[in-house]
Amino acid sequence: MGKMKNVISAVCVKCGAEFEASPNVTTCKKCGGILDIKYDYEWIKSQVSVKDMADRHENSMWRYREFLPVQGDSKVPKLRVGWSPFYQSERLAEKLGIAKLYIKDDGINPTASLKDRASAMAVVKAEEAGASIIACSSTGNAASSLAGNAAAAGFKTYIFVPERAPKGKVAQLMMFGANVISVKGSYEDTFRLSAEAIDRWGWYNRNAAINPYLMEGKKTVSLEIAEQLNWKMTDYVAISVGDGCTIGGVWKGFKDLYAAGFIDKLPRLISVQAEGCCPINRAIAEGRDWYPMEENTIADSIAVGVPRNPDKALNAIRESNGVVVNVSDQEILDAMKLLGTTCGVFAEPAGATGTAGVKKAIEQSLIPHDATIVTVVTGNGLKDPATAITAAGTPITIPPQMPDLLSAFPELK
Amino acid sequence: MGKMKNVISAVCVKCGAEFEASPNVTTCKKCGGILDIKYDYEWIKSQVSVKDMADRHENSMWRYREFLPVQGDSKVPKLRVGWSPFYQSERLAEKLGIAKLYIKDDGINPTASLKDRASAMAVVKAEEAGASIIACSSTGNAASSLAGNAAAAGFKTYIFVPERAPKGKVAQLMMFGANVISVKGSYEDTFRLSAEAIDRWGWYNRNAAINPYLMEGKKTVSLEIAEQLNWKMTDYVAISVGDGCTIGGVWKGFKDLYAAGFIDKLPRLISVQAEGCCPINRAIAEGRDWYPMEENTIADSIAVGVPRNPDKALNAIRESNGVVVNVSDQEILDAMKLLGTTCGVFAEPAGATGTAGVKKAIEQSLIPHDATIVTVVTGNGLKDPATAITAAGTPITIPPQMPDLLSAFPELK
Repeated sequence: MGKMKNVISAVCVKCGAEFEASPNVTTCKKCGGILDIKYDYEWIKSQVSVKDMADRHENSMWRYREFLPVQGDSKVPKLRVGWSPFYQSERLAEKLGIAKLYIKDDGINPTASLKDRASAMAVVKAEEAGASIIACSSTGNAASSLAGNAAAAGFKTYIFVPERAPKGKVAQLMMFGANVISVKGSYEDTFRLSAEAIDRWGWYNRNAAINPYLMEGKKTVSLEIAEQLNWKMTDYVAISVGDGCTIGGVWKGFKDLYAAGFIDKLPRLISVQAEGCCPINRAIAEGRDWYPMEENTIADSIAVGVPRNPDKALNAIRESNGVVVNVSDQEILDAMKLLGTTCGVFAEPAGATGTAGVKKAIEQSLIPHDATIVTVVTGNGLKDPATAITAAGTPITIPPQMPDLLSAFPELK
Repeated sequence: MGKMKNVISAVCVKCGAEFEASPNVTTCKKCGGILDIKYDYEWIKSQVSVKDMADRHENSMWRYREFLPVQGDSKVPKLRVGWSPFYQSERLAEKLGIAKLYIKDDGINPTASLKDRASAMAVVKAEEAGASIIACSSTGNAASSLAGNAAAAGFKTYIFVPERAPKGKVAQLMMFGANVISVKGSYEDTFRLSAEAIDRWGWYNRNAAINPYLMEGKKTVSLEIAEQLNWKMTDYVAISVGDGCTIGGVWKGFKDLYAAGFIDKLPRLISVQAEGCCPINRAIAEGRDWYPMEENTIADSIAVGVPRNPDKALNAIRESNGVVVNVSDQEILDAMKLLGTTCGVFAEPAGATGTAGVKKAIEQSLIPHDATIVTVVTGNGLKDPATAITAAGTPITIPPQMPDLLSAFPELK
């Protein structure tokens, strides 16, 4: 096994126990807690500087190699993940009444969501672990991104989905050649069967709440945001929250940069959940631990009533002195239109939830008007055309004659 | 109006008449033919070299500014278009029995198709022309890409679609805030009404077969392919063909590079159409002019029985000593699965058509096994989930018990 010069160990976020950061390390052997990868920031500083970054031509998440838990001789995987676009939108900022607003569009990834960052990492670590099969259980973006990234890298996958999984998403999995097991039962049944199978056959486990490396993939979105801001940190970063892995990864990225001296200030996180499913934000608001909640929202990617990574999510929000805000489904649909009309960015519901939260937080004076904010779009609107139809409304239909056009669009005179 | 130092004029491809390359020039005033932008290659050579390119950090189609017909002071538009991923696939090459195969994935663009390259150009030229409204008539990728790019740049759009246009695509237009006019009538009726309106109100015309600049946007896919190949040209470039604008643009890009000394060889084009709709390829095969054909294929983006840009397409195929190949719908579906399973690339039907053509051309010995080939994926599979479901097949459904998993997947023992 090759050595990672930048990584010290994997530390349990619950009990603090330290473990060797082997490629297939999972949860804490003592208390079952999730592990966090611990870096040697002095080594990182000795290897790379802000100035070095500017000269790099690797336009993917792998441009931050010194910050990533991969062995020196591991190859960058085939699919180009990350280095997603970063847009300043003056018009959306004006509409929301905020000084500066930036959009980080992670819908522009090979399988069209931020999850590709975690799956690309899974592929590299599976290779390091000598695995040839990767497995997970999921019905959404994690599943399709694993299927796509694994196909490009030549891995076999077993992906467990509950029978109710939407046909379109299952089709995407099948198209990437995944072995899809459609399970007659609940998501819990599906997860249990997948865990049993992963255990039995020793498949590489792509589950962001169990495999600590996946969050290290997700954190690259923050490394990019910082560089795209020229290392001048914004006041706030808004992100939609489901099982908690993504906001945990976002925070880890900023903390790593801060520890390595790449940025001199940390942003405050804006944790946005759906009103109908907000166990993480509720825990923050109530100042106590989370407890399960119904899953009542159109934003399917964050409809997680029993979050699988609450510890890192809650830590991230608390450490960053974060803001929590819950939005209604109608506010999510409105944010989809706002992003489309002012930025040309088409987001899936969960992808627009962060922006809906920014709007509401400003309206409720949770954040000041002179702030600068980054909002992360986590997935592409093409993933969920049905909801887009709901949000978009219907066009005016007319006979093919000029007088009809004139009466339908009076502004044309 | 600012001057373009690299552009000499706009030349009619039919009668050779030359016109001033003003921002809103359209077809030939003498014969109605389509115009082609003529460059001063000596000027280009004096400004930029292959070596200069390697140092550039502009990761979009605008890195080739010296080759593009835009004024010196025109701003790069907001949405990041181009510099799409370029993958060598050893596994697909082996499956097809070809020496080297590369995939250019243009589904990774802001609105998920190659058409963004033309729409980004339209936005810049509309700005130069002093227009505030851009219009087109289309039901597909051109429409959604205009809507998205215009929204990001702050232009108003009027987009005419026939009433039969798929709801999902219309929703995307509405989401970007386009003024969508759904016309009770045929596509011809829709086109006629749009032409009348464009004429009456002087809107900027985003129609690749009328506006010569749009093909100059499309050609950037070839500039990128050449650079991503380190300027060592491949033997063949395969592309799906509908109205002819894209293959025309692809060829223009290579010719420009050749004329400026950036490449020392031109590739042969592989023009791929659907068996059920192949008027361009039929014209080549029969050695005479094209005539209309039925539009009988699942690949809706290239279901064009009356191509609007046949002249440039036929010139491109003939000048490049090109190969024409027609593929069945089943072959297109098979190519979608091939791209997904071997490359992790999810293509819409027209996006996989080029690859289907490569497979068939090799099988029919139209191209030799020792060739190197680039195939362009023109659009993302998420645009057409219904067809993906057809191509992908259905998964095995089992109860949530280990014995059921074992009997469903016997390879697990």
